[in-house]
Amino acid sequence: MAKQPASAITPTRADDYPEWYQQVIKAADLAENSDVRGCMIIKPWGYAIWEHMQQALDKMFKATGHQNAYFPLFIPKRFLEKEAQHVEGFAKECAVVTHSRLELNDEGKLIPAGKLDEELIVRPTSETIIGAAFSRWVQSYRDLPIKLNQWANVVRWEMRTRMFLRTAEFLWQEGHTVHATEEEAQEETRQMLEVYADFAENFMAMPVVKGEKTADERFPGAVATYSIEAMMQDRKALQAGTSHFLGQNFAKAQEIKFQDQNGAEVFAWTTSWGVSTRLVGALLMTHSDDDGLVLPPRLAPQQIVLLPIYRTDEEKSQVLEFCAKVKSELEALVYGGLPLRVEVDDRDLRGGEKNWQQIKRGVPLRAEIGPRDVASDSVFLARRDRGHGKGDKQSLSRADFVGTAVAMLTEMQDGLLAKARQLREDNTRTVTTLDEFRQFFTPENANKPEIHGGFAVCHFSEGDEVQAILKDLKVTPRCIPFDLEQTPGQCVFTGQPTSRRAIFGKSY
Amino acid sequence: MAKQPASAITPTRADDYPEWYQQVIKAADLAENSDVRGCMIIKPWGYAIWEHMQQALDKMFKATGHQNAYFPLFIPKRFLEKEAQHVEGFAKECAVVTHSRLELNDEGKLIPAGKLDEELIVRPTSETIIGAAFSRWVQSYRDLPIKLNQWANVVRWEMRTRMFLRTAEFLWQEGHTVHATEEEAQEETRQMLEVYADFAENFMAMPVVKGEKTADERFPGAVATYSIEAMMQDRKALQAGTSHFLGQNFAKAQEIKFQDQNGAEVFAWTTSWGVSTRLVGALLMTHSDDDGLVLPPRLAPQQIVLLPIYRTDEEKSQVLEFCAKVKSELEALVYGGLPLRVEVDDRDLRGGEKNWQQIKRGVPLRAEIGPRDVASDSVFLARRDRGHGKGDKQSLSRADFVGTAVAMLTEMQDGLLAKARQLREDNTRTVTTLDEFRQFFTPENANKPEIHGGFAVCHFSEGDEVQAILKDLKVTPRCIPFDLEQTPGQCVFTGQPTSRRAIFGKSY
Repeated sequence: MAKQPASAITPTRADDYPEWYQQVIKAADLAENSDVRGCMIIKPWGYAIWEHMQQALDKMFKATGHQNAYFPLFIPKRFLEKEAQHVEGFAKECAVVTHSRLELNDEGKLIPAGKLDEELIVRPTSETIIGAAFSRWVQSYRDLPIKLNQWANVVRWEMRTRMFLRTAEFLWQEGHTVHATEEEAQEETRQMLEVYADFAENFMAMPVVKGEKTADERFPGAVATYSIEAMMQDRKALQAGTSHFLGQNFAKAQEIKFQDQNGAEVFAWTTSWGVSTRLVGALLMTHSDDDGLVLPPRLAPQQIVLLPIYRTDEEKSQVLEFCAKVKSELEALVYGGLPLRVEVDDRDLRGGEKNWQQIKRGVPLRAEIGPRDVASDSVFLARRDRGHGKGDKQSLSRADFVGTAVAMLTEMQDGLLAKARQLREDNTRTVTTLDEFRQFFTPENANKPEIHGGFAVCHFSEGDEVQAILKDLKVTPRCIPFDLEQTPGQCVFTGQPTSRRAIFGKSY
Repeated sequence: MAKQPASAITPTRADDYPEWYQQVIKAADLAENSDVRGCMIIKPWGYAIWEHMQQALDKMFKATGHQNAYFPLFIPKRFLEKEAQHVEGFAKECAVVTHSRLELNDEGKLIPAGKLDEELIVRPTSETIIGAAFSRWVQSYRDLPIKLNQWANVVRWEMRTRMFLRTAEFLWQEGHTVHATEEEAQEETRQMLEVYADFAENFMAMPVVKGEKTADERFPGAVATYSIEAMMQDRKALQAGTSHFLGQNFAKAQEIKFQDQNGAEVFAWTTSWGVSTRLVGALLMTHSDDDGLVLPPRLAPQQIVLLPIYRTDEEKSQVLEFCAKVKSELEALVYGGLPLRVEVDDRDLRGGEKNWQQIKRGVPLRAEIGPRDVASDSVFLARRDRGHGKGDKQSLSRADFVGTAVAMLTEMQDGLLAKARQLREDNTRTVTTLDEFRQFFTPENANKPEIHGGFAVCHFSEGDEVQAILKDLKVTPRCIPFDLEQTPGQCVFTGQPTSRRAIFGKSY
């Protein structure tokens, strides 16, 4: 019998999904925990993925009429106090700056000095500080709309952190807009959710459900929160982006008002929306396998890696020359509107080790090139979406490789999305009774796909009784999907008649 | 007599240079002070300039083998204590986080709670936190070099702030590298200074002097600090970028050591280098005039603005159609390796007001397009580097405009650099006596160009006596230029023989 190749990641997904997640991060060298509790170091390969996400999103934001700006890291304490729900949501976990310098004390220890008159909060989100600017900038309907975005770091003092998914400091973008009318602000909120969904599906190859959050799950201070929800491979939900219709709540708290066309002074309508480095974790959990990271080609920092193999100096110069030629031919091609990203990995490492590193890093296409390949003007190709056995590699003439590279990447990108969508469809079920709901979310049933699953679609009502059941099962309503018909029925939890339906799941 | 057109900025440079600076920022809508002391809001036009700087620099960093990463915002207090000079340099002005939440007290006031066991410092620079990671990552000579860069915000609690030039929080990049040998680290330090000089001259059109800082002006903890120094229009010096050879100081303080090829355990050699949003201030003060901002084309967020002029709806559709055509023809052109950046400014504003806004924002080329221009297939063109009178506009056929646009931008870019270089040459003088030196830097002589100036090139020695004279005159040694011959002579301040020569100036 042929020896079954071992997987590169231990444990496997089936054995221990959370630990598999950490090990994939380590094996792909994406990030590591730092010396500061809850704060991570994003290493070059992880950061490069984020950069590609940023570039794609930034282009989409600009195409929808937004401009970038930058607001202070610090928020005066009194700003946070203005919006009651907002302070309740964020005061519990924030970094508080109280001093402006360190001094040596008599024992030669550095101690805080220069106590501030007013404490400053490291921004957990910027509605309040940006709202203060809006209140100065908005005077007349002619000043509206204002549509800004900021790429920034934010801090929320999370107790239980997990790299990318939940960290004390994280990187994100936060859009903030002000509008003259409710309709326009609503439209903006929905438009940005569409942008996020478009990005998730077409760049991350991650299908998402678009919908509205229930009241309990809203952003603190929002009138309505919309989100995109994705299903990870362990069938848990991950909220991948949110867009908030803030109504006039922040406008009233911060006096953002203007003279309308009739000369009347009225409050403006605001929105905010954001995605963060959490998306890197979502990307990982959507596509990766027991050999490590799998990257959708559109976000892969390197889409193709060429792996030169040689023994003698003469072979080396031939092989490297051939690699350079293939690289330049590939780089002349365009995929997703950008030139192909190709690397020649000529590091001084054993071939096997190098190949495994590139597998674990998730590079979509790997082409080994040795003297025999040079002689036959061909490459020995492996696709990251096709396992790692010998049989999955194929010899391709150089012309065919260059000629089909873009098509292969496109096929991989589409294939990853289709596979993820299939997983979600296979694990989404309409649930009509509480018993069925409990079965669906009881961990002991995990290996009984006929009664256990990921997303439960249910009629529901809100209230303490429902909350208690959900809390007990560690399940939350993910969203009320836009495309889910709100037909009359009975609340799964209380039996009350209701026409509200939502998706429920365990979540990150 | 023709009426002399007034300048758009009050006061003019001649009247009050510091206030002119603030007014140009305001008129171009680059930034404004925020509600947080010392922190500014970078508005869209200012941020877009920074984005173009970032893109150009980022490309240069990657081309020289650097990768981006991201390290925590917070630095544990004990990290800062490790390098004695470093802590002395930064402890005096840093934001100290002491608590992890806010709680309501009995009076309903929010007060800091959740006191931290160890205070965290908001990074003023990241040598210590990145060095801690290096000490984990560097084990063998095979791990070297590591060449990283980080785009980030940093905080230094400055008492006297000025937008862009000196703010409590600012945006920057900081490169951090580790090397196996002293030579390699020195080479890296010098290479990055060359990258900065290249960027300053070829993108910012700002000539710089490259040189080494004197001992007193070194980065805290560095063995050698190199800088690029530019002369602003008021003949003051501005340090525009620094590159530090850190020797083994940080490696020893943080245990960054490795096994070399002979199996011996040795300390590594590190460097760091950075430029910040201060460059936006430098750009402003190098080129702008009494009508507002002047942008070198390579960094202008919009290089060409088309200003449609019409009265009737019929005129409007003709003019806008023509503008769209011109725009798309221009956008097909490449300047500096990128497509031309062109805007049609169709805002509902009076034509004169709109034109003035674009002048004050520093857009290189403005083309007015009205019905008559459409009829004659031409545009009415104004260049930002040629004043704002009627006589400075010219009618150009569409074909000529499109055909010469890139050449005009190139000419402007070169012209701005040449002009700035001329100013520096006219105001740099070799000074050989203390009396001459005093005259050179006495403000009362400002209108006597024959004895007063900007950069003084002098033989010098270091010591308390010299320091006292310089402090009194508010002058500092800017750098010891690489290309300045270190010939024997006499110290201007003490008369002692010395072969050291430096450039002296008043500085920002």
